[in-house]
Amino acid sequence: MTGTPRGVSPEMHLEVTMLFEEYGRLLDADSLEEWTTLFVPDCRYEIMSRENIEQNLPLSLMLCDSRDMLDDRVYSLREANVFNIHYDCHIIGPVRVTPQGDGWTATAAYSLFQSIQAGETRLFSVGRYHAELRRVDTVLRIVRMRVVVDTGAILTLLATPI
Amino acid sequence: MTGTPRGVSPEMHLEVTMLFEEYGRLLDADSLEEWTTLFVPDCRYEIMSRENIEQNLPLSLMLCDSRDMLDDRVYSLREANVFNIHYDCHIIGPVRVTPQGDGWTATAAYSLFQSIQAGETRLFSVGRYHAELRRVDTVLRIVRMRVVVDTGAILTLLATPI
Amino acid sequence: MTGTPRGVSPEMHLEVTMLFEEYGRLLDADSLEEWTTLFVPDCRYEIMSRENIEQNLPLSLMLCDSRDMLDDRVYSLREANVFNIHYDCHIIGPVRVTPQGDGWTATAAYSLFQSIQAGETRLFSVGRYHAELRRVDTVLRIVRMRVVVDTGAILTLLATPI
Repeated sequence: MTGTPRGVSPEMHLEVTMLFEEYGRLLDADSLEEWTTLFVPDCRYEIMSRENIEQNLPLSLMLCDSRDMLDDRVYSLREANVFNIHYDCHIIGPVRVTPQGDGWTATAAYSLFQSIQAGETRLFSVGRYHAELRRVDTVLRIVRMRVVVDTGAILTLLATPI
Repeated sequence: MTGTPRGVSPEMHLEVTMLFEEYGRLLDADSLEEWTTLFVPDCRYEIMSRENIEQNLPLSLMLCDSRDMLDDRVYSLREANVFNIHYDCHIIGPVRVTPQGDGWTATAAYSLFQSIQAGETRLFSVGRYHAELRRVDTVLRIVRMRVVVDTGAILTLLATPI
Repeated sequence: MTGTPRGVSPEMHLEVTMLFEEYGRLLDADSLEEWTTLFVPDCRYEIMSRENIEQNLPLSLMLCDSRDMLDDRVYSLREANVFNIHYDCHIIGPVRVTPQGDGWTATAAYSLFQSIQAGETRLFSVGRYHAELRRVDTVLRIVRMRVVVDTGAILTLLATPI
């Protein structure tokens, strides 16, 4: 399966890559309300640890199985939760796009850095995005996003989406 | 604004991505004199901290408002300044390109690692490039580059461009 | 040499980028046996430190000068060697592709993170890939891969390919 996946033109690949770019950029800008608009209403967003998946322990570290639930989560981050203020910075690698049914699957590795107000940056998490995408009207949207994190240790600190 | 920005073809997107690629690669190779040739004569290059921008303190951590000044900066790095010898490694994420007037704006997140002669690598800085680009004759050049750094703490160590 | 290298279309650039994507993804998934199939039989794979190259000490930290040798290396990793179990995560930057003879050269910067079972992630290595590629039948393959690592200190821990 080396090379350009069958049926994925440079135009399509660019469109998916720009969706991932926007995903990371909106999170980095703390534009969480705009970030949720990338998802369809009946979406599923979950964060799982790679260790759990490989041990067949399908425990989600974060799970929202609709856009409403994702919006609620963001609302509670704004209104209720207390967590360390930080800047996120997502660095996303090349995206692999594969046609699947009437949509596409897409995967990319990411690294996520967090900077705190004292000015220090730490590596927060690395892992991989596994997305299912569908075109809604003319716009590409996320139907399902599974974030598989390699970094298990710091997830007790998980507050904002990855 | 999800998806392929209007008017940006895969060819144009690739050309801008290759400009960012060259920007990072020349810095990593310590080819600073060649790196300055990516800029137009009346360019502006500045590094600002994200914290300062959000507090409306538009203080630049590094500022060169012409190509001559950028060349001077590089010359002084070669001739006068004393700083730790290191290898840079820029990892740049997907680039978002938007037509703007007779040119383009482009933005991408970056992570910058520095390795010292003892062989250790540390995360030096993460942040985001905001560029304005213009075609000069047939070649794409940088009119303005604003580097917004999330990492405030280590900028006392800032010597070479980001 | 700014901009789109002559003769490299978006289709060709995408195909090479997807080869690098697959290279990193297979290593990250510990699919080492599949990873070696990306190489031609008479390939050369080597890891060198940047410091050694700049001092004209062409000592390889890892060297396999055929696909068989690469397969042996992977086999010994599976059967004989003892090393810390970890998850790899490669984040690869934009790829520069240049036509060369009847093939292509390609280069990209990488960062490689390793996560251990206790759940912590550390930066393992940063550096740059320098590849020579050739089309075999219809598929793009790696003829030569030179990995130049900036990070010298931890290479005593080098077990799996970068």
